[in-house]
Amino acid sequence: MTQRVALGLSYRGWAYKGWQSQPGGDTVQDHLERALARFADVPLGHLRTLCAGRTDAGVHGLNQVVHFDTEIVRDSFSWVRGTNRYLPKDIAVQWCAFPEAGFHARNSARGRRYVYLLLESPVRPSIEDGVAGWVFRPLDLAAMQAAAAQLIGEHDFSAFRSSECQAASPVKTLRRISIERRGAYWRFEFDGSAFLHHMIRNLMGCLLAIGTGTRVVPWMGEILAGRDRKLAAPTFPADGLYFVGPYYDAVHGIPERTPPMDWLP
Amino acid sequence: MTQRVALGLSYRGWAYKGWQSQPGGDTVQDHLERALARFADVPLGHLRTLCAGRTDAGVHGLNQVVHFDTEIVRDSFSWVRGTNRYLPKDIAVQWCAFPEAGFHARNSARGRRYVYLLLESPVRPSIEDGVAGWVFRPLDLAAMQAAAAQLIGEHDFSAFRSSECQAASPVKTLRRISIERRGAYWRFEFDGSAFLHHMIRNLMGCLLAIGTGTRVVPWMGEILAGRDRKLAAPTFPADGLYFVGPYYDAVHGIPERTPPMDWLP
Repeated sequence: MTQRVALGLSYRGWAYKGWQSQPGGDTVQDHLERALARFADVPLGHLRTLCAGRTDAGVHGLNQVVHFDTEIVRDSFSWVRGTNRYLPKDIAVQWCAFPEAGFHARNSARGRRYVYLLLESPVRPSIEDGVAGWVFRPLDLAAMQAAAAQLIGEHDFSAFRSSECQAASPVKTLRRISIERRGAYWRFEFDGSAFLHHMIRNLMGCLLAIGTGTRVVPWMGEILAGRDRKLAAPTFPADGLYFVGPYYDAVHGIPERTPPMDWLP
Repeated sequence: MTQRVALGLSYRGWAYKGWQSQPGGDTVQDHLERALARFADVPLGHLRTLCAGRTDAGVHGLNQVVHFDTEIVRDSFSWVRGTNRYLPKDIAVQWCAFPEAGFHARNSARGRRYVYLLLESPVRPSIEDGVAGWVFRPLDLAAMQAAAAQLIGEHDFSAFRSSECQAASPVKTLRRISIERRGAYWRFEFDGSAFLHHMIRNLMGCLLAIGTGTRVVPWMGEILAGRDRKLAAPTFPADGLYFVGPYYDAVHGIPERTPPMDWLP
């Protein structure tokens, strides 16, 4: 009898060519499927996973959710520990659940959350290299909040879409952008139905152009309305971008992400 | 005229063979001195730095302090930005100060602080790999605090000293060990006059042997009194160890460390 298995993964993205499987085999999905095959002792390709959100090269995952169907019977912690034995040390399965067959990691997701961490400092990152972006000019919180407010709701986000984007439609719903600061660090959280390829990194580029005073607040609305990628700011680096994870209706019983780490004390 | 220059550095230690210069040249000090030579356009070896605390391979630095003497005149931010241009991306000079000639990065230090970050979870680290240690068994805070209390004060710490330690004396003063927990993460802070080679990693091994119930609380005092390294617990991994930095009398005008990052939101 076939069972649907859901797994939650966390990973540091900088060593991998993004999530999606590639011929070279150096993506997070490739590592996961190799580890699953070794643990379950089945041929590579037998267990194919489907994820909630394909992350780019360099993007980190906190609660990436995948599902697959299998006749192999293991208890949930065996899937976790057994698979982790064969994963690189910067990727780990955090939990395993057995949802009903109607659950689908991508299609059941009501939305997704991303966070961008940013260091504002005259000195470039060192210990934060690869885990936070960087601006050396002071940022204006009110200006960025006013710009972000123009993006909320259902819109055609073509202006923030990479030319390689494979999404069927550029129309997405952005539910919330929250921006907060603690000391020299900024945290941007994006909550939406789904996101286009490079959308958050392109939004970050535009928000920071406004935050540093290079552009004025109404420019964001003009860019959005123009639906022309060439008019927006350059794509911001992936370093500080985290896929927090998808969220589902409670009926599916999919775990929330594990609690965060408080950084350097 | 010769001027004394002090620099504060932060670095992620995992790519380097510790602080201290070595023939292979792959230490933090080697990278710093090569970068200083390139920035100041002087032969390698002209600018020799002396640090407040030599960190081991894998140990991170938050506010490592060094000093050197030079006739080269630059303003303080030029030393910072110019040197950073030639440093690897996981090492950066954070500040530059010009203390009076009596200042000495090591000898003027009134003490040093270290922090150990630890993940307590049935699942191994992934995104925290190399920046936090790991225990999979639950820890008993009260037991560890009672054990730590036995270490406070001036003692012969030979029981926690590596055989490679070059310190003149095993007698050091441990002023404070604070242990706190947030979610799945533990933070241990050590404040003392100075620390022997591997001392904190050996203390961590013993504290965790008690925290997990492998050893009883009075065992810590017995180990300390026995002054025999072979009786203590194994050296704990360097992954979660941070040299927070030295501290000095205010008269020297040495900056405190830069504010910490709040980790994954």
